[in-house]
Amino acid sequence: KYEELDQVVIGVCGGDGIGPAITGQAQRILEFLLADALKSGKVAFKTVDGLTIENRAKANKAIPDDVLAELKTCHVILKGPTTTPRKGDPWPNIESANVAMRKELDLFANVRPVSVPEQGIDWTFFRENTEGSYVLGSKGMHIDEDIAMDFTVTTTQGSERIARAAFEFAKKNGKKRVTCVTKANIIKTTDGKFLDICKDMAKEYPEIDFDDWYIDIMTAKLIDEKRRKDFQVFVLPNLYGDILTDEAAEFQGGVGTAGSANIGKRYAMFEAIHGSAPRMVEEGRDIYADPSSVIRAGAMLLAHIGYGVQADKLFKALEICGQTEKKIETTGRDTGATSAQFADYIMETIEKL
Amino acid sequence: KYEELDQVVIGVCGGDGIGPAITGQAQRILEFLLADALKSGKVAFKTVDGLTIENRAKANKAIPDDVLAELKTCHVILKGPTTTPRKGDPWPNIESANVAMRKELDLFANVRPVSVPEQGIDWTFFRENTEGSYVLGSKGMHIDEDIAMDFTVTTTQGSERIARAAFEFAKKNGKKRVTCVTKANIIKTTDGKFLDICKDMAKEYPEIDFDDWYIDIMTAKLIDEKRRKDFQVFVLPNLYGDILTDEAAEFQGGVGTAGSANIGKRYAMFEAIHGSAPRMVEEGRDIYADPSSVIRAGAMLLAHIGYGVQADKLFKALEICGQTEKKIETTGRDTGATSAQFADYIMETIEKL
Ligand SMILES: CC(C)[C@H](C(=O)O)[C@@H](O)C(=O)O
Ligand SMILES: CC(C)[C@H](C(=O)O)[C@@H](O)C(=O)O
Repeated sequence: KYEELDQVVIGVCGGDGIGPAITGQAQRILEFLLADALKSGKVAFKTVDGLTIENRAKANKAIPDDVLAELKTCHVILKGPTTTPRKGDPWPNIESANVAMRKELDLFANVRPVSVPEQGIDWTFFRENTEGSYVLGSKGMHIDEDIAMDFTVTTTQGSERIARAAFEFAKKNGKKRVTCVTKANIIKTTDGKFLDICKDMAKEYPEIDFDDWYIDIMTAKLIDEKRRKDFQVFVLPNLYGDILTDEAAEFQGGVGTAGSANIGKRYAMFEAIHGSAPRMVEEGRDIYADPSSVIRAGAMLLAHIGYGVQADKLFKALEICGQTEKKIETTGRDTGATSAQFADYIMETIEKL
Repeated sequence: KYEELDQVVIGVCGGDGIGPAITGQAQRILEFLLADALKSGKVAFKTVDGLTIENRAKANKAIPDDVLAELKTCHVILKGPTTTPRKGDPWPNIESANVAMRKELDLFANVRPVSVPEQGIDWTFFRENTEGSYVLGSKGMHIDEDIAMDFTVTTTQGSERIARAAFEFAKKNGKKRVTCVTKANIIKTTDGKFLDICKDMAKEYPEIDFDDWYIDIMTAKLIDEKRRKDFQVFVLPNLYGDILTDEAAEFQGGVGTAGSANIGKRYAMFEAIHGSAPRMVEEGRDIYADPSSVIRAGAMLLAHIGYGVQADKLFKALEICGQTEKKIETTGRDTGATSAQFADYIMETIEKL
């Protein structure tokens, strides 16, 4: 659908801490790869820099209204890490900005690929991204001084659309199996509903194997070198998706190496899934921050908006700089490469491809 | 406290499927180790064989009343695996028997040790065992056709007693750190309460380091060979305990090798944490079932009731038979050792210690 637009607007939302620095480097690389499209006006960048913890605290809102309005003028968004207040922090108890953005822009599918070719790992996670344990996360109740309650909500529509996304992805990419992960033996009503919907949908895809596991044992299966190769596409409620994708990313080098795509019908947002490292900024070391996660998110963004060739080049360059040339290992340390130098390596590598 | 009793009654509850067969082998070993105490009457065994899926289905209850009454005449219980009905099974939608037993006997602490000396892993998990996402697990609501809801409940008393157990264990065993794992950034009210209580209690133990992590990133940290050695004692709400202990057990050889202690003020129950494998029974192969998990649970039981010397011998024998002599590897297969032969190996090994 992006091909039909006169201009695709890419919002760049730096976030907090090291966010603006590393997101800026990712933008440099995207500009380099999209030079022609920028010149012809097919693509434009738009900086959205109001999503900071200071602004959010002032507005006492996860996303201030004016920032949300700006985000809604973009088609796709590249987002750096944002600070989520913890108890004891000087900020009011506002919701996490990425969780709020997922809800506000209805980004229902959190898609996270994890690939470790040499270990036979090639997984794609479809995490439901707008409901489950997250939807009323800030609306739990203190029944009295001693009893606290939280709520989980699962809807038919919410489960169907993520299940559909997972099965369609499997079908289009020739994957043989879709695996649903819940805790439906205990959390019977919501997880039971999610599982039933996935099971029903599986009947529409007779060429794809379907199986289901409980989240506890699945965290063990991912480690089992004999079994983990059997899995290809996962579909999971929000909380289990959150948990299992962090575990999975570890095999690939940690959450710092993983990008996360948040896809809705109308908008899509691509983000780094590490923290904002405020201490690096305080100490003036943010120029050394490792930009590879947000650069990877940028590559996912490129693929999503139809620049597949450019995306592939960027993925390849990330692999070469990270694994073969080990350039990535020195980034993030004061004695190593800066974010800008790392971005330079990436662009030089792309030129040599 | 067991030393003060005239007689400690050990209930043996075989459960379903392969349960009675493997639990019987564990009982043989305990009888062997406790021969003197049995002769003097300090210890007695009591068979509780009514906890079968057939009886539970007939009573339409997770634990039939007469079985519960029998269990309550025991001081400690050794429990085999029980079948939990899944949708589509011929049984009514009754609750899991072990979850029900944890609630009915108020076994609030689920203690799971995981140890892999050659990898520097020596973890003890204190999983809250009676509330959280489990307490109203069967009482979710279908708000309407399209909206399902589940509830999580955390109480002050429930959180305090598990936190106390973890810190006291750490103190008594010279552990340097207690780590709390929640998802308090999202599930703010219940997990927030749990975390606050742990944080407060940490102040009473200034000699012990306290840290807290979110469950998503913690599943990654357990895999990180550099970081995982830093953790010693974990304290977690029910659901995260369920998830993280299965992952952790994988490093030690899988959930089949782990035993689980469910401890309350009045009762304690020790169980295998694998399934009941009904198919092995149907095919007449239950004599080959691997009894090592329930034997390990038996060793934990011995330690708990004050037979530390016997417990240590059994742990040692399990290690020798499992890791050094690899006897355990052939068990569980039709061509290998039977459960009874494995139990024989264990007893022969103990005699040689
Ligand atoms: C930062 C946090 C709120 C977020 C989540 O829980 O979804 C993160 O862990 C993620 O996976 O994107
Ligand atoms: C069988 C299941 C209900 C149980 C649980 O979820 O607690 C099991 O996974 C465990 O960890 O003992």
